[in-house]
Amino acid sequence: MGIKVAVFGATGAVGKEMLTILAERLFPAEEVHALASRRSIGTELSYGDRTLKCKDAETFDFSKVDLVLMSAGGDVSKEWAPKIAKAGALVVDNSSAWRMDPDVPLVVPEVNPEALDAIKKGIVANPNCSTIQTVVALKPLHDAAGITRVSVATYQSTSGGGQEAMDELWRQTRAIYVNDPIEPEHFPKQIAFNVIPKIDIFMEDGATKEEWKMTVETKKILDPKIKLFATCARVPVFVGHCVAAHIEFEREISAAKARSILREAPGLMLIDRADEDDPAFVTPVESVGEFATFVSRVREDPTVENGLAMWIVSDNLRKGAALNTVQIAETLLNRGILKG
Amino acid sequence: MGIKVAVFGATGAVGKEMLTILAERLFPAEEVHALASRRSIGTELSYGDRTLKCKDAETFDFSKVDLVLMSAGGDVSKEWAPKIAKAGALVVDNSSAWRMDPDVPLVVPEVNPEALDAIKKGIVANPNCSTIQTVVALKPLHDAAGITRVSVATYQSTSGGGQEAMDELWRQTRAIYVNDPIEPEHFPKQIAFNVIPKIDIFMEDGATKEEWKMTVETKKILDPKIKLFATCARVPVFVGHCVAAHIEFEREISAAKARSILREAPGLMLIDRADEDDPAFVTPVESVGEFATFVSRVREDPTVENGLAMWIVSDNLRKGAALNTVQIAETLLNRGILKG
Repeated sequence: MGIKVAVFGATGAVGKEMLTILAERLFPAEEVHALASRRSIGTELSYGDRTLKCKDAETFDFSKVDLVLMSAGGDVSKEWAPKIAKAGALVVDNSSAWRMDPDVPLVVPEVNPEALDAIKKGIVANPNCSTIQTVVALKPLHDAAGITRVSVATYQSTSGGGQEAMDELWRQTRAIYVNDPIEPEHFPKQIAFNVIPKIDIFMEDGATKEEWKMTVETKKILDPKIKLFATCARVPVFVGHCVAAHIEFEREISAAKARSILREAPGLMLIDRADEDDPAFVTPVESVGEFATFVSRVREDPTVENGLAMWIVSDNLRKGAALNTVQIAETLLNRGILKG
Repeated sequence: MGIKVAVFGATGAVGKEMLTILAERLFPAEEVHALASRRSIGTELSYGDRTLKCKDAETFDFSKVDLVLMSAGGDVSKEWAPKIAKAGALVVDNSSAWRMDPDVPLVVPEVNPEALDAIKKGIVANPNCSTIQTVVALKPLHDAAGITRVSVATYQSTSGGGQEAMDELWRQTRAIYVNDPIEPEHFPKQIAFNVIPKIDIFMEDGATKEEWKMTVETKKILDPKIKLFATCARVPVFVGHCVAAHIEFEREISAAKARSILREAPGLMLIDRADEDDPAFVTPVESVGEFATFVSRVREDPTVENGLAMWIVSDNLRKGAALNTVQIAETLLNRGILKG
């Protein structure tokens, strides 16, 4: 017996990926409904070979589905997730609204699938995009040598800000070629051929909310003892986030040992050869459309005891959002929590 | 009495900036010669309001000038700098050829001008672009609280790779708009809408030479006791490098104290307000054409004792190359080492 699924926020960059990935991974869906706001009613969306017509989320009867994958922004999620859960469907939410709620599991299936067993409100939260790819890469090394501290800098693509943000990069870049004026709308400054060291709002301590998310979400998902400090920046890339991670461990771990661990770890693909004649490392454009999180440039950091560095790249719309959400649904199914 | 100057490598991105900056800063030049390889003979270059015609460096009589600013690549510099010095002119070289030679001062005038007094070979080296902006920002904080370790990630523009590298970004970006194939030539992978975590060649320990340069040059310029670990990446920006620096100090230093120190420090401009209603921080496009190194996003790093983070942005063709070279010449003049 299959699962009745609704994708809430289906017209967004992440919502579209959710539909694609449900089809690609042969999720055992009996029905799939594409839901969005009223102005998108009737919009046609691809789900594998099929075409779905968008329905109005406001008037949808959620008691008729088992699972709702949400990517409709924090405010919508805050209002709707509890209503949907009350109607009897499990919600896997991609916004930041529920992530730090102690009664809501925050899950990366390769890292903490067991957290799903403690589901209380019928809501599971999908972590922040840059957090997901970071913890997938940190987890096997943490198990091996105990991570104490991580210093990260991110190179995040515009798609992390949604379709409008990608469109703005495209438009501004074109404007530069035809000598039109640049008018930032989505981003606070020009994004074309530029780098913006501010993602999400500023917090009281001077960090941005994106940086704060990486710190607190890593603690919740991986280990509260891990201290993580981040500088997050937006780069003029469409899809694919990079994280430069400088890691400190309790116990000694060589780069060679780390590579052999990462090579076997779930969800990871190690592409790493620092050989000038035949180099191998991954860049964002190469990660697009892939399920894996890529790790390159694993090396020892001699400036600290038991230090390692690595370069982590992933498709932020997939592993950083839609894929992880679908994987959570698969795990809910495998653990018998989600039933058709 | 003025100084007779030659710019060797005048047709390159940095060489052109050298001519511009000599004029802008009213360097007391009695003569300025633009030198390049034979194929550029006769090429016209701007020096303030004047136009210079390129001469052949091979056949130029260096005994007729007092100062040669070189930006012609490492190999040319290795061959020519000693010959020029032997002919009696002081050489300020922008390549990496002489930087780590113990008899060659490696100088950032705001940081270690006194190193010029130990000039032995008639050659002064200009540091790597990302090192310069980093040490200018670190120096006043090091004086105040003693830096022990710095973890940096860089976001470096294509102009660091010269005019060809900038042209490749321009060409590849255009190709994406008109659906032409992307063919990397200068860069190892696509640079348009992408990030490349490899600048210069790989070293034996897995670091790139760019990362190694930041480590060893910071020691030589600022303090051999400072441990610096870097991940360097190329971003699709034309001009302006960013450095995310996470710094550890011997003694306590608050973000507020650091800001008040940075505000007064030579060569720096503090633009830093983490106020969501009226934010202030600097991006690469805003640094273009400026002399200053900009510091933004100064904040405490609570994951380590006495930790601070900051975001450092500078025009890599100016402070990162041509400006620093001209400032070295000015300092040589002020210290009575360079005479007309």
